[in-house]
Amino acid sequence: MSVKIAKYSGFCFGVKRAIKISTEAAMKNHEIITLGPVIHNPQMVEKLAQKGIKSISDYSEIKGRPTIIRSHGVEKGIMAKLHRDNIEIINATCPYVSKTQEYALQLSQDGYQVIILGDKTHPEVIALKSYVEGEAIIVAKSSDLPEGKFNKVGIISQTTRRIEDLQGLVKILVPRCEELRVINTICNVTSVRQDSTIKLAKESDLMIVIGGKNSSNTKMLARISENFVKTFHIETASEIDKKWLQHKDKIGITAGASTPDWIIVEVYNKILKCVGNIEKQVSKVEDIPGFKEEKNG
Amino acid sequence: MSVKIAKYSGFCFGVKRAIKISTEAAMKNHEIITLGPVIHNPQMVEKLAQKGIKSISDYSEIKGRPTIIRSHGVEKGIMAKLHRDNIEIINATCPYVSKTQEYALQLSQDGYQVIILGDKTHPEVIALKSYVEGEAIIVAKSSDLPEGKFNKVGIISQTTRRIEDLQGLVKILVPRCEELRVINTICNVTSVRQDSTIKLAKESDLMIVIGGKNSSNTKMLARISENFVKTFHIETASEIDKKWLQHKDKIGITAGASTPDWIIVEVYNKILKCVGNIEKQVSKVEDIPGFKEEKNG
Repeated sequence: MSVKIAKYSGFCFGVKRAIKISTEAAMKNHEIITLGPVIHNPQMVEKLAQKGIKSISDYSEIKGRPTIIRSHGVEKGIMAKLHRDNIEIINATCPYVSKTQEYALQLSQDGYQVIILGDKTHPEVIALKSYVEGEAIIVAKSSDLPEGKFNKVGIISQTTRRIEDLQGLVKILVPRCEELRVINTICNVTSVRQDSTIKLAKESDLMIVIGGKNSSNTKMLARISENFVKTFHIETASEIDKKWLQHKDKIGITAGASTPDWIIVEVYNKILKCVGNIEKQVSKVEDIPGFKEEKNG
Repeated sequence: MSVKIAKYSGFCFGVKRAIKISTEAAMKNHEIITLGPVIHNPQMVEKLAQKGIKSISDYSEIKGRPTIIRSHGVEKGIMAKLHRDNIEIINATCPYVSKTQEYALQLSQDGYQVIILGDKTHPEVIALKSYVEGEAIIVAKSSDLPEGKFNKVGIISQTTRRIEDLQGLVKILVPRCEELRVINTICNVTSVRQDSTIKLAKESDLMIVIGGKNSSNTKMLARISENFVKTFHIETASEIDKKWLQHKDKIGITAGASTPDWIIVEVYNKILKCVGNIEKQVSKVEDIPGFKEEKNG
């Protein structure tokens, strides 16, 4: 029996950066606020809480304390309010997300009807649409598009969507507008993780996808993997049921961009333990068969 | 047995305009030159020749005479040369083609790698690419694309291509570039003719497509029609073979955007004659069952 990890798994550049910025800030300040969790991983957020980083959901709870902007970014209006209220801002927005926000503003100022491919309830998209001047159209899939023709359309995407969904949307829009400007804001890291998940899922009997149940990119990895093989989406090793592993010869694991290494290692070791293969246990993610470290940034 | 014409057939706005401009100029001048045929219909070009409009292929043959710019446009360098040589220019370029030339120039000046969907040997495309600053990539289909990734890509199309080909090209390019700007320069008249050809072909036993063998949009109609039913592409009524019509119950006809009405009428009447149905013959295209006049311009 083999257990392998998808070549590219776990923390991406933007998440690593957000954690680094947050922990460094926590060393300097007694208590820091984040408007919503810094990243979409409850276990990591809990660890940050132990360092004095408190996640709140309402602006009124800031009460003058230094405030971290989460990796997904926040709404333009909230940024303005923080400045106005003279709050110290620790900006952990992923630079790729910031870039997408700039495109949103620019396209709308240039007279394009902005269409965002994304989940309208996701914080990244909520923040993104606030940068559009005028009304943005948000679609999770091409069939969400309203009827009718457009003049000039500008498309941007939540950084964690599937490239196939962007292609599908663009294909449908070509005959329906005079000009279509597509900025491919899907993060390369996202598509690289999706591609290596597909590769591993194709050669596995079972896939374990590790990451926050609230993590968009992790959920997407699970959805993609399910197309090829039986897949379980877990947050921690404790969720693994020994029964899942019975009669499985090739087990694949993968992890979202916000899943910390230590959780991946725990999951890997737990699987080995379940199948009675303790001697192969590892202490770092780099030692799991199949893993390849990325050059980021 | 029925003979029907596709709802939208024959002369488009740009062709009507080019003929009008040319004939009006011919009334004022003793002899006029066109650089290549004004439109892609040999019979119509012959008629214009009788009015003193002489089609030449080489610039050196102009010899100071007033020169018509054909509906497909000419290269930027030739335009400059005509101005420099003080030649009277009678510009019959289709306004939609002129607009596409402007986009070609603008996109390349804005730093986009221009990709033209079209036939690289077609005069419209030869003229179009001359407006691109730098090197344009010309593809007849998405598989013609060179390998590799692009930064900023601007796509324009020969006005007579199929929208499906533009969609296919765009779909392939989305993951291969950071920014994709698509100007849908496919003429509405072209797609309307294609759609009504498909509709008629689906309900016919035989299709006759009328138009110049050198007409891009007519050839495209024939190619599309062939997907549904046995199809013949002819230029004039004289090509019709009585045998084609044997045991056919529903005959459909359609005509390219450069096919004059009188040829369509001749074809229709010839078909009726072949099947012994002379009493239904018509004198104008508007009287052929199925025809609908367009509001153009």
